[in-house]
Amino acid sequence: MLIVQKYGGTSVGNTDRIKNVAGRVAKYHAQGDKIVVVVSAMSGVTDNLIKLAREIMPLPSERELDVLLATGEQTTIALTAISLHAREVPAVSLTGAQAGIVTDGVHTKAKIQNITPKKIHDLLNQGHVVIVAGFQGQSIEGQITTLGRGGSDLTAIALAAALRADLCQIYTDVDGVYTADPRVVPAARKLEEISYDEMLELASLGAKIMQSRSVEFAKKFGVVFEVRSSLNENPGTLVKEETKSMEGIVVRGVSLDKNQAKITLVAVPDKPGAAARIFETIGDANLNVDMIVQNVGHGGTPGSGATDLSFTLDKPELLKAQKVLDGLKAEVGFAGVIATDGIAKLSIVGVGMKSHSGVAGKMFAALARAGVNIDMISTSEIKISVVVDLAKGEQAMKAVHDAFLGN
Amino acid sequence: MLIVQKYGGTSVGNTDRIKNVAGRVAKYHAQGDKIVVVVSAMSGVTDNLIKLAREIMPLPSERELDVLLATGEQTTIALTAISLHAREVPAVSLTGAQAGIVTDGVHTKAKIQNITPKKIHDLLNQGHVVIVAGFQGQSIEGQITTLGRGGSDLTAIALAAALRADLCQIYTDVDGVYTADPRVVPAARKLEEISYDEMLELASLGAKIMQSRSVEFAKKFGVVFEVRSSLNENPGTLVKEETKSMEGIVVRGVSLDKNQAKITLVAVPDKPGAAARIFETIGDANLNVDMIVQNVGHGGTPGSGATDLSFTLDKPELLKAQKVLDGLKAEVGFAGVIATDGIAKLSIVGVGMKSHSGVAGKMFAALARAGVNIDMISTSEIKISVVVDLAKGEQAMKAVHDAFLGN
Repeated sequence: MLIVQKYGGTSVGNTDRIKNVAGRVAKYHAQGDKIVVVVSAMSGVTDNLIKLAREIMPLPSERELDVLLATGEQTTIALTAISLHAREVPAVSLTGAQAGIVTDGVHTKAKIQNITPKKIHDLLNQGHVVIVAGFQGQSIEGQITTLGRGGSDLTAIALAAALRADLCQIYTDVDGVYTADPRVVPAARKLEEISYDEMLELASLGAKIMQSRSVEFAKKFGVVFEVRSSLNENPGTLVKEETKSMEGIVVRGVSLDKNQAKITLVAVPDKPGAAARIFETIGDANLNVDMIVQNVGHGGTPGSGATDLSFTLDKPELLKAQKVLDGLKAEVGFAGVIATDGIAKLSIVGVGMKSHSGVAGKMFAALARAGVNIDMISTSEIKISVVVDLAKGEQAMKAVHDAFLGN
Repeated sequence: MLIVQKYGGTSVGNTDRIKNVAGRVAKYHAQGDKIVVVVSAMSGVTDNLIKLAREIMPLPSERELDVLLATGEQTTIALTAISLHAREVPAVSLTGAQAGIVTDGVHTKAKIQNITPKKIHDLLNQGHVVIVAGFQGQSIEGQITTLGRGGSDLTAIALAAALRADLCQIYTDVDGVYTADPRVVPAARKLEEISYDEMLELASLGAKIMQSRSVEFAKKFGVVFEVRSSLNENPGTLVKEETKSMEGIVVRGVSLDKNQAKITLVAVPDKPGAAARIFETIGDANLNVDMIVQNVGHGGTPGSGATDLSFTLDKPELLKAQKVLDGLKAEVGFAGVIATDGIAKLSIVGVGMKSHSGVAGKMFAALARAGVNIDMISTSEIKISVVVDLAKGEQAMKAVHDAFLGN
């Protein structure tokens, strides 16, 4: 088998942990597997390098940041190769550029354009384990580039696609993808498998195991990958295209995002262009809006031609958003801006929803039984999200998990 | 003017010092000079990386060591470029590979084979300061290589040659080359100029400002360079081909090497092949011998057909040498091995010696007046070295400096 294994910053956080990684890789190698190992920078290293650069200048050049940050993974690949040598396993390290990872020239968030896997294949055929620096590549012009946060996952999945690997394993500090956060919901269970789309909805909803774009990339190129722990031998969760059998399960998982805030614009005039003007302004300020609900509320008198408009966004952006919208009050003619950070977003996700009815009703009933008020609702084909009071978020999560996924 | 400036590890030891370097570079840039800056790893970084690797394995692979160590200079080039940006000076960093520095494939001690300066010229012509990582290059096969200790000086001098620079400045933590170590000889003076050959003799004799091979490279390609301090604005010492005027000065400098040890083989049989057998054995053991003197001494009875043979070597190799030679005693038939580390080597250097006589006599007379016994003597065209008692080394140095270079 040709296996791509990716180890994150915590898994290679010091030389002892790197030795452990080498031990695991050596076991696979001894079984006759061909192994490509993708590693991140040792935990803390990237942040330290950014701190050094910012000591000099608050906004350092992105080209030079890439030159700087690429040293983090380069350090890890060498130490990992040496750890394999210490076990008498032949191993060679490659930087992103040496591994043939060609990106566009957008520094600090480059996109992989092309991978030339010949060198890796040659080294594998000679019996080497090949260690590749995650997170980095080289533009056609020969510039060092980095792929942004979570970029090492992307490197692993892109390499698995280019090498036509039999398996891609993403090693991390959790055992796999759970039906809910086990720290909050003790009854949460590890999933054996999950579809790309479910994983995407869970990832973007706060179950932060992987960045969305890595999952999207895997989906696009049909790369089956396994999320599993580098701390034990337990099998993890397989992430793959949805199958018929997956649809039998209505809800795959429940997630809770406490990093949300809500803004309500009171009594927005019900005239063409008002909403457009509001969200254009928000977009120009680089604020990412998540849920949007327009509803007749306490500020809108029925028949007055005015409605309340609410939306959620990331909590750290709340103050900025409030300021921007206060400046728009007179022009658009709404009555006021109400901002609150005391909310949480609770979501259920499952491809089975497509073919099952009554899912929303069951969720809302569970919340009602638990005494949790629903503030906003938003649905898509495979998920239902509600905004609830932050203080009741975990209680709500347990109730919903119990309703759909309890034993 | 096109100027290559090299800053060592101490000069870029932290972000404040890197900012100082940027201040100096910015001044030259503002004068309209084209500047190429070669930097080392921040002081301590290379040693820390080696320590990390050795935590894993006592003798790490040299290929992987090069991948690891190259990150040190890569970090510095990015931070230096950012420091110039902070002063609104356009600057671009280049790794050794990006700068077109092609080496052979001998890891950890690669030799520069070729430099393609087109990219640097292009960037200079666009008005950029170009920051190049010292100490590193790339083999034709695309492997990362390093040049060994002192490699950043070599990078600077090789770049100055390839770019046909008008000046090459080696910034360090001393003001230049002195007639003697000022910490020992208060009357020592900074030299305005020195010839390559004099610098070579002084460097290899313990005045450790630069590695010999950097000076040899400069001599070979006729690169005039200036050794000066990064801590002040004082002019330094120009190192260049010797001129007629230089020959007027008999002694350029005095150096003292306390890191020597001496071995005497007592009563070596005076037969063909004895010395050859001894020094072949020493060479096979990778021991570097410096001075060799064969003299009839206390162990050799006149007319007995036996002589004493003494040589010096680096102090840390003394025990190993003694062991190797003890094993040879029976075979070659000498009477014993006397090892001592209580010696120092004192040397005077000057191209003027070629055309002046009586220099040795003057040196020995100065030592006699100071009550210093001479143990061994060795001479070349431009230097005279003597071995003296370690305890009297500094006193001897002052006496000789006073005789030739005192006011």
